[in-house]
Amino acid sequence: MQVVVIGANACGAKSACRVKRLNPKAEVILIDKDDLISYGACGIPYFVSGDVPHENALRETSYHVVRDEKFFRDAKGLKVLTKTLVEEIDRKRKTIRVRYLNTGQIEEIPYDKLIIATGSIPRTLNIPGIDLQGVYTLTSLHKAIEIKEKIARGEVEKPLVIGAGLIGLEMTEAFADLWELPVTLLEYFPQVLPRNLDAFTARMVENHLREKGVKLVLNARIKEIMGKDGKVIGVQTENEFYPADLVLVAGGVIPNSELAKKAGLLVSPATGGIVVNDRLQTSDPDIYAGGDCIEVTHLITGKKVVMPMGSLANRQGRVIGTNIAGGTATFKGTVGAFIMKCFDLAVGGVGLTLTQAKIEGFSASYALNNQTERSHFFPDAKYAYYALIFDKLTTRVLGFQAIGPFTDGTLARIHALSSILPYKPLVEDLLNLELAYAPPFNSALDPIHDTAHVADNILKGLFEPIHWEEVIKRMQEGDQNTLIIDLRHPKEAEFNVKNFSNVKHILYQKIRYHIKEIPKDKDIILICNSSRRSYEVARILKSEGYERVYVPLGGISFPRKWGEPVK
Amino acid sequence: MQVVVIGANACGAKSACRVKRLNPKAEVILIDKDDLISYGACGIPYFVSGDVPHENALRETSYHVVRDEKFFRDAKGLKVLTKTLVEEIDRKRKTIRVRYLNTGQIEEIPYDKLIIATGSIPRTLNIPGIDLQGVYTLTSLHKAIEIKEKIARGEVEKPLVIGAGLIGLEMTEAFADLWELPVTLLEYFPQVLPRNLDAFTARMVENHLREKGVKLVLNARIKEIMGKDGKVIGVQTENEFYPADLVLVAGGVIPNSELAKKAGLLVSPATGGIVVNDRLQTSDPDIYAGGDCIEVTHLITGKKVVMPMGSLANRQGRVIGTNIAGGTATFKGTVGAFIMKCFDLAVGGVGLTLTQAKIEGFSASYALNNQTERSHFFPDAKYAYYALIFDKLTTRVLGFQAIGPFTDGTLARIHALSSILPYKPLVEDLLNLELAYAPPFNSALDPIHDTAHVADNILKGLFEPIHWEEVIKRMQEGDQNTLIIDLRHPKEAEFNVKNFSNVKHILYQKIRYHIKEIPKDKDIILICNSSRRSYEVARILKSEGYERVYVPLGGISFPRKWGEPVK
Repeated sequence: MQVVVIGANACGAKSACRVKRLNPKAEVILIDKDDLISYGACGIPYFVSGDVPHENALRETSYHVVRDEKFFRDAKGLKVLTKTLVEEIDRKRKTIRVRYLNTGQIEEIPYDKLIIATGSIPRTLNIPGIDLQGVYTLTSLHKAIEIKEKIARGEVEKPLVIGAGLIGLEMTEAFADLWELPVTLLEYFPQVLPRNLDAFTARMVENHLREKGVKLVLNARIKEIMGKDGKVIGVQTENEFYPADLVLVAGGVIPNSELAKKAGLLVSPATGGIVVNDRLQTSDPDIYAGGDCIEVTHLITGKKVVMPMGSLANRQGRVIGTNIAGGTATFKGTVGAFIMKCFDLAVGGVGLTLTQAKIEGFSASYALNNQTERSHFFPDAKYAYYALIFDKLTTRVLGFQAIGPFTDGTLARIHALSSILPYKPLVEDLLNLELAYAPPFNSALDPIHDTAHVADNILKGLFEPIHWEEVIKRMQEGDQNTLIIDLRHPKEAEFNVKNFSNVKHILYQKIRYHIKEIPKDKDIILICNSSRRSYEVARILKSEGYERVYVPLGGISFPRKWGEPVK
Repeated sequence: MQVVVIGANACGAKSACRVKRLNPKAEVILIDKDDLISYGACGIPYFVSGDVPHENALRETSYHVVRDEKFFRDAKGLKVLTKTLVEEIDRKRKTIRVRYLNTGQIEEIPYDKLIIATGSIPRTLNIPGIDLQGVYTLTSLHKAIEIKEKIARGEVEKPLVIGAGLIGLEMTEAFADLWELPVTLLEYFPQVLPRNLDAFTARMVENHLREKGVKLVLNARIKEIMGKDGKVIGVQTENEFYPADLVLVAGGVIPNSELAKKAGLLVSPATGGIVVNDRLQTSDPDIYAGGDCIEVTHLITGKKVVMPMGSLANRQGRVIGTNIAGGTATFKGTVGAFIMKCFDLAVGGVGLTLTQAKIEGFSASYALNNQTERSHFFPDAKYAYYALIFDKLTTRVLGFQAIGPFTDGTLARIHALSSILPYKPLVEDLLNLELAYAPPFNSALDPIHDTAHVADNILKGLFEPIHWEEVIKRMQEGDQNTLIIDLRHPKEAEFNVKNFSNVKHILYQKIRYHIKEIPKDKDIILICNSSRRSYEVARILKSEGYERVYVPLGGISFPRKWGEPVK
């Protein structure tokens, strides 16, 4: 059996090796247009930053052997063709036509089974000046090496990143954190990570970026990348000119499915991804496809999506290898889990954002929670922030977002949620989740539990949530139809009482003795650090006949993290 | 409605507050025989160690208010009776008889609903001398305060801990780590954490304890705790005398279900726990019970067990509170998840150990895996060790154990497994698990995936596992019917080749050129750091007609961590 694999990174390399392991007698040919193959593309930002000292580190096995052609030949028994472009697939004759880029020579290679792992290509941004010298997209490790060498030569003083998605943010940190360069970050949408977070969590990341000295511009409408003598000098938006000597365009990627399309394989016009079944076969049963170039099922919506993630690509590679070698393996779909380091933060999410859930037609609502990652009595326990997206009618869990310090605590919560989301859990199932506990790691009730409690209490009508934006608006307007009661320690409440005419202090523990001071003809908003005390007081007031009682979601730490004028 | 709660810690305090929040007009009376209530009992080792500076920290809310009687009265609206012993429940008259320990006065208190949250008591060890001065069991926070004061007075130079379960190990660290006391730790079983880990993972913890200077004695058969003038001077086992000026007995706990039994409630003779339904009602529908005093369903075996964990107790408290206030909530059971810090390690597990699984009648087998927690190219990526227990016939996942550096990485993997185990996943479902990835947090394939791959490869007969104990035995015996091939870098292999006559070096990458040197009439054992290379070479040899090829589970790092003479 001759197996030909087009593309020698995550999915391609994995599937080639898996076929060969299961069936050592198979001839496996691994083809790539590049000469650098099988590198950890997700590690590129850490190579640029210097965390990973040399590009070869991204190409090494865990036992420090570089995964080059020789390695794949000797260790894995594969035939490897690098700098080789696959120009056409002839499905009738079961051959591919390749062009050797070094010599220009053309050859036909027959296959019994073919694997398309052509990955993704950067989304084309129709911006004038994108071809100027000094404008980069991260199409390969070569580009990263170029960027790093340019920085090392001292030629970069003002880097500018276009696009605040995962890669854009990681590259922003790479420039700003270790090279201490002042980075400008332009984002078209009104928030960072628009595909991954909601505004209420994204704003924490935005504030953190600004604290770290990043010049973050949201709602950026880029008109042109400006140059002088063919070299980039800055970016002109509708409103402003941002000088730059290096522009990194990180505008997302699209599936590289052209070759498949030309071969007459089914490619989705909606997603641009190659259509595959759950064994990852294309519309031609002898051709498999995996990685960034395919579309997959989103397990929350049931719809097809592209989800260009290295983790999925690797898992898909194994599935393809197993199936080609005569076994049976399936890839059922994705819940869209992500995790990232952003300076001192760990940011993660899974499932749908509130915005996405609404667009998908769910009766989506959300709960916020903040609490220390470790037991609050444990030294150095730091606060983390959580959002749970759920459907109000079915109580189904739709998504989860977490922002915490740069530890593995965020990973722990995302791992738990991404593991159960395919089982379509309800909020009640999160209450029942068993989550190991010891004080150095979490609280007796894990943040997942307490976030689910908030959702459960909302679903059961135990309190009336109000959004912080609305609370702050009323504070700033001094709305006299509203009384905001700060329930914290008098010293904590001092600032708000002094600065906002409709804020009054009543200590949480003393509330039962002060109920007569609270008017029944006003909206009562109860505030504290986490909204736990607010919720309890809301329950007391409700039993005393108060009807207009509101509890802001997630406590005062949320707007404080957003930089809003409350303390 | 008058609700009476017996026991004012995790489950009791939680259920009392939840009832009151849902039904603020209810009269809720919280009763405890102690005067210190609602403390984070799981934090006691960290209080003794000094990590938590003052006992009140364990009793504080996250906003630093001590949860004493006044707090529960003012903030929560509960009536609290401390130093009050409940002597009897009269179910016909729906009253309890209490004795006020300060005055000796007796009173009857009526209830509409009663909650029994009496927790657990230390297992009685029938050892002479257990009543000597200086012998402690951690029955309450008072005991911890006593111990800490004794240490602070300089009266403790030789602490000795009996029992290497979770609390025993945490207390061992508390003594050894921060007070720098030389601790002796005696364990009856041939391994530490006998209820939580298998020998192959426990040995890593044992070695770590010894590296940290702990005098660990396994298989300890204690004859007597020895004293002089009424004060402890040491512990005599069948073999040896261990001097000690403080003995902490941590021999596990049993449910404190006497009161319930006396009241005629159903108490399991097998587990000693109060029998409850999944709404946590006892055999008397007006009486609920939760926390350490009840038995619960083990979701892997379906059998009843006691599982004294603070996390479960808190969740059960909320369930009881909801049900008493007229709602519906259930507690379905446990998968036995735990996590602990042990010096520089994070140790966690969930489900059944291999030993337990075999006792329960499963066709249990296991896979081992070691890999760096973060991407191997990421700086400071440290190795962690994983074990997956599964059923060979059904391929069902039965348990998981993880030992890593003290980060939240172990928590992340335990969280994922404990979240899905109730859904009864197969090994294949772990392959399909979506786990978020970024290089600062993990590899593209998470350790869970790679551990499941090993299990999957075993189940599919892709390689023949062999246990390291057997490999080392053959190395030490110089068994000439066995050829052990060390596949690593020559420098790494040097020690084994030099020290063991049946070890030969062939570099992994070169194996295809050296196959003729490998005899077909011997057992071939392939070794490397993680067994990944060994597995690949086993596949090649199998295709070349070799039949006696073995791959040790988990790679050479496992015995190395056990302190075995391989390098």
